[in-house]
Amino acid sequence: MALPFDRVALIGIGLIGSSLARVIRRDSPRTRIVACARRAETLAAVRRLEIADETTDDPAAAADGADLVVVATPLSAYAGIARAIAPTLMDGAILTDVGSVKEAAIRDLSPAVRAGVHLVPGHPVAGTEHSGPEAGFAEMFRDRRCILTPLPDADREAVAKVTALWQTAGMKVVEMPAEHHDRVLAMTSHLPHLIAYTIVGTATALGDDLKSEVIAFSAGGFRDFTRIAASDPVMWRDIFLNNREAVLDVIQRFSEDLTALQRAIRRGEGETLEAWFTRTRAIRRSIIEAKQA
Amino acid sequence: MALPFDRVALIGIGLIGSSLARVIRRDSPRTRIVACARRAETLAAVRRLEIADETTDDPAAAADGADLVVVATPLSAYAGIARAIAPTLMDGAILTDVGSVKEAAIRDLSPAVRAGVHLVPGHPVAGTEHSGPEAGFAEMFRDRRCILTPLPDADREAVAKVTALWQTAGMKVVEMPAEHHDRVLAMTSHLPHLIAYTIVGTATALGDDLKSEVIAFSAGGFRDFTRIAASDPVMWRDIFLNNREAVLDVIQRFSEDLTALQRAIRRGEGETLEAWFTRTRAIRRSIIEAKQA
Repeated sequence: MALPFDRVALIGIGLIGSSLARVIRRDSPRTRIVACARRAETLAAVRRLEIADETTDDPAAAADGADLVVVATPLSAYAGIARAIAPTLMDGAILTDVGSVKEAAIRDLSPAVRAGVHLVPGHPVAGTEHSGPEAGFAEMFRDRRCILTPLPDADREAVAKVTALWQTAGMKVVEMPAEHHDRVLAMTSHLPHLIAYTIVGTATALGDDLKSEVIAFSAGGFRDFTRIAASDPVMWRDIFLNNREAVLDVIQRFSEDLTALQRAIRRGEGETLEAWFTRTRAIRRSIIEAKQA
Repeated sequence: MALPFDRVALIGIGLIGSSLARVIRRDSPRTRIVACARRAETLAAVRRLEIADETTDDPAAAADGADLVVVATPLSAYAGIARAIAPTLMDGAILTDVGSVKEAAIRDLSPAVRAGVHLVPGHPVAGTEHSGPEAGFAEMFRDRRCILTPLPDADREAVAKVTALWQTAGMKVVEMPAEHHDRVLAMTSHLPHLIAYTIVGTATALGDDLKSEVIAFSAGGFRDFTRIAASDPVMWRDIFLNNREAVLDVIQRFSEDLTALQRAIRRGEGETLEAWFTRTRAIRRSIIEAKQA
């Protein structure tokens, strides 16, 4: 089924943007795709991969004439992009994004939204630890969730069209308020990434001899953290800076719990440990049942 | 190539023990395998799976006449097993184990080691989050590392035979002192597991509404932690209780690093975050180059 878009501007064409381009290519070949990136190498890769009809480094030119504009850059670029595209966004255009913090996305994109332009903030919860247009693939979104956080007065037709876009990608689409999204993702995504970055950093600070052994024996659990801690540094810097309060809250909860387990280890309280570890197993089963494993 | 063992006693036949049984079955079919477990259901599963020639719930009977005895239970069972098998271990028998803490393994198994019995402590660094004999598979050890921690006066022929066993399973075998093993694994395995148990516990302590959303949106990073936090509770309780000092040391280092990142987030220090996250990416590349990814 073709998508209800004639011209889609993808501003930012990394892992997520290029995966979405592949979905549109596959399922809606008559939709014209404009890819916008700052770096010439990125645009050269997009041309080599043949996942866009046009490439440009100018967001205003990309947005010009597009009925759907998808911002898929790190969050720190949003405000500048909003300023750049405001004059060229056409009447009836839908402006959406894929960012991991929705209150900040709304704050930074809103200046581009005049009457007749429809903002539908979105977050496809999918990804890998790889970055850049070469790393994308259309199936990345399959069976994952996409969260839309439209404002209460959002245009429902615009929301339906963005919903259709992500459903075409194979996602289950849900809506929730931006503030709620940011609290949930602080726990399920932002804290896990921060923890992984922390522990891998802790290991790199060990002496050189121990460090090479950490790499050799990483199969004991550590390597799963290194995969997460290989995620894009700029994207993650922006997430933490833009979801500060919610992230600090879950760090605090986590630290209290870690201190409790540390205390149980120091005191040799085996029952406390076993009870805790048994409880966490149940969560894994819930995730498997929810088909998110 | 047949293994240099006529009769192998596997005391404990969960994920690791049953995987080893499958390796021996596959590559040394004339070696007789005796499986020992406390629970009747476990022994019934072993018979159903046809991965042992004999089953028993009596460690002394299992060890009787065995030229190789492999202890593959949680660490808390070691001392009792050592007491039980001491009278039946035959002259020339090799006693080894697969436990994750080697100083404790040596401490608890040594009482069974009289002159003519050879202790070769071992740790195949491999596994999954699943438990029990059904979860095992012969290929689990392939291309992973196995660490042996023989004492300085160990019988080299016995060490060579245990080395051959794990090489048959596809492992790269290295030797190091037990104390050093325990420090390395505290970082690469014990701390990652504790962190995963902690964060999954932190999530389960959220209100019910938020909890179901944590499950639905776990693909953002959380689900990798839930996999690790589904590991066997008793096995992990015993690891933390038996590697206490080394684990408490790495928890302390980790907590200091987390506090530093927390502070950077609170103060909005983007450069600190980006520099940290860029550094951790390099470790991932090293692990991929070491073919441990």
